[in-house]
Amino acid sequence: MTARIDTTLIIGLGLIGGSLARALRSSGFSRRVLGFGHREASLARGVELGVIDDYSLDLEQALAAADLVVIATPTLVAAQMLERVLPLLKARDSMPIVTDVASVKGNLQQAAVATWGAMPPRLILGHPIAGSERSGVEASRADLFVSHRVILTPVPENDLEALSLVRDMWHRTGAEVVDMSVAAHDAVLAATSHLPHMLAYALVDALAQSPLGDDIFRFAAGGFRDFTRIASSDPVMWRDIAIANRSALLKAIDQFSEHLAQLRDAVATEDAESMLQTFSRAKQARDEFATMLQARSQAADQHLAEPK
Amino acid sequence: MTARIDTTLIIGLGLIGGSLARALRSSGFSRRVLGFGHREASLARGVELGVIDDYSLDLEQALAAADLVVIATPTLVAAQMLERVLPLLKARDSMPIVTDVASVKGNLQQAAVATWGAMPPRLILGHPIAGSERSGVEASRADLFVSHRVILTPVPENDLEALSLVRDMWHRTGAEVVDMSVAAHDAVLAATSHLPHMLAYALVDALAQSPLGDDIFRFAAGGFRDFTRIASSDPVMWRDIAIANRSALLKAIDQFSEHLAQLRDAVATEDAESMLQTFSRAKQARDEFATMLQARSQAADQHLAEPK
Repeated sequence: MTARIDTTLIIGLGLIGGSLARALRSSGFSRRVLGFGHREASLARGVELGVIDDYSLDLEQALAAADLVVIATPTLVAAQMLERVLPLLKARDSMPIVTDVASVKGNLQQAAVATWGAMPPRLILGHPIAGSERSGVEASRADLFVSHRVILTPVPENDLEALSLVRDMWHRTGAEVVDMSVAAHDAVLAATSHLPHMLAYALVDALAQSPLGDDIFRFAAGGFRDFTRIASSDPVMWRDIAIANRSALLKAIDQFSEHLAQLRDAVATEDAESMLQTFSRAKQARDEFATMLQARSQAADQHLAEPK
Repeated sequence: MTARIDTTLIIGLGLIGGSLARALRSSGFSRRVLGFGHREASLARGVELGVIDDYSLDLEQALAAADLVVIATPTLVAAQMLERVLPLLKARDSMPIVTDVASVKGNLQQAAVATWGAMPPRLILGHPIAGSERSGVEASRADLFVSHRVILTPVPENDLEALSLVRDMWHRTGAEVVDMSVAAHDAVLAATSHLPHMLAYALVDALAQSPLGDDIFRFAAGGFRDFTRIASSDPVMWRDIAIANRSALLKAIDQFSEHLAQLRDAVATEDAESMLQTFSRAKQARDEFATMLQARSQAADQHLAEPK
C-alpha cells in the first residue's frame, strides 16, 4: 500500500503521540514519522523503540520537513505550541496539515484565531478519547485507538482535503471518527470526563480532611475504590484541563449541583418515590452504557484478531 | 474443635446471610445453622446447597430453637424484623444473642429501644463491609468476609458475653472486627459509601436527561465506567439505605457540596494554585488508599492459602 503521507511530525512523544506514531508507521499511512519535543531522552528512546524514525530538537527544522503535524502535548501546552507553530507555517508556500489530540477544543480554536487572524483552513482540531493508567512513550501501543472514538471538530473555514486526510489517519488506527462542533465537544467532555474528575477529587479531598478521622478510608469498600480511581489522576493535567475548559466545566458543575440538590430534597423529605425514580433511571442508563462498552470491547477484539 | 454455639438462626438467606451461614458451619463455630425467610424456594435451595442444615417458615418456632439470631435482611426490613423478633424473645427465660448485618445502625437502635423500652443487653448491632456484584444465596461463599472489616456498635447496656460471642463469630469468618459508636458508624458509612452512591446516581441521571443528547454516553471513556459502576446498584436497596441513614447522609451531602462549591470557585477564578492543592491532596489520599487495599488483598490471599 502506498503511504498516504510522506512525513508526519509528532510534537510531544508521550503515550498518545507515541501510540499514534506507532499506528501510522505500522499501518503504512505515513512513510516516515518524526518526533519533536523538549526532552531529548524521550525522543531518543522513541527511536530506540521503533516508535519514530528520527527526531529534531529544532522546531522550525522539524516543521520544514513535515506534510502532517500532530500536536500531542498536554492540554495547556497545546495552545502555546499552536501559537508557536502557526506563524512558522504561515510563510510557507504549501502549508502542511495540522491537527492535535488535546482534551479541550475551544481554547485551541481561540488561540488559533488569535494567532492566524481566522481559523487556518488546514488546521483540523481533534480529540481521541483514549488513555491508559500509564503514560510516556514507553507505554505507547499501536493498538491504543482501536475501537475508541475520535472526535473531530471541523469548522466551515476548514479545507475539505485536510479534513478528509485527518479522518483517514484516525481510521487507519482502528478508531471510530465522529464530527462535532467545538462547543458540543467541550460540553460533552465536561459532562462525561471533566466533571467526574472534579467530583472524585472533591470527594476524596473532603474525606481526607474529614473530622471523622484519618482512618475513614479503612472502612471504604470496593465500590469506593472504583468510584475514586480517577482521583489518582495527574493533578497538573487536570488543573490544566479545568482551566482550558472552564466555561463548559462550570456549566456541568452547576447542572450536576442542581440534580444533587433535588436528590438531597428527596432524601430530606423521605420522598421514596422520587428517589426510586432517580435511582432507577440512573441504573437503566448505566446498565445500557455497560452493555454498549461490552459490545465495543468485543468489536475491538474482533478487529485485532482480523488479518491485516 | 467444639462448636461455640449450638444453633444459629439466619433470618434472610441472601448473599450476606448465606455466606455467614457457610462460614459458621465450615469453621465449626455453630453446630447447626437454621434459616428463616419468606421465600421458601431460597431456603430450600440453601439446604440443597449445604448452606444451612434446615429451615422454618414459622418465626416463633425458629426463634425457639436458636441460641444466636442473625438478622440478615435488607436494611429497612431489618428494623421491622427487629420489632417482630424482640417481643417474641422477651418472654423467654434465657434470651438468645441477637445481631444483624444492616448498613445503617441508628435506625435499628431506635427501633430496638422503642420496642424493648431500652437497648436489649443481648442485642449486638453489627455491619460487615462486604458485598458483591451478585446477590442471593446462590452467590454465597464461605470466604466472603475474609480480610473484610466488620464494624460492631456496642453500647454500655450490652452484655459483655454477648459482645464477645459476636466478635468471635466474625473472627471465625476471617474478618477484622472494629468497634465504633452508632453515630460514628453511620457517619463513616454515609461518607464512604452512601454519599458516593448518591453522587453516581445523580451524575448518571443528570447525563441521561442532558440536552446534549441520548448518545452522550458514547463518548465516555474508561474512567467514567469505573466512576459510575455503583449507579448500577439496586435502586430499592439504596432508597432504603438513604431513608434509614437520612440524617448522616444529609450531613455528608452538605459537606461534599461545600467542597464542590469551593472547587467551583477555584475553577471560576482560575485559581490554579488552589486547584493543584486540592487535586494533589486527593491524589495522595487515593494513592494511599490503593496501597492499603493492595496490602489487604495480599493478606487475604495469604489467609486463604494457610492450612486451616
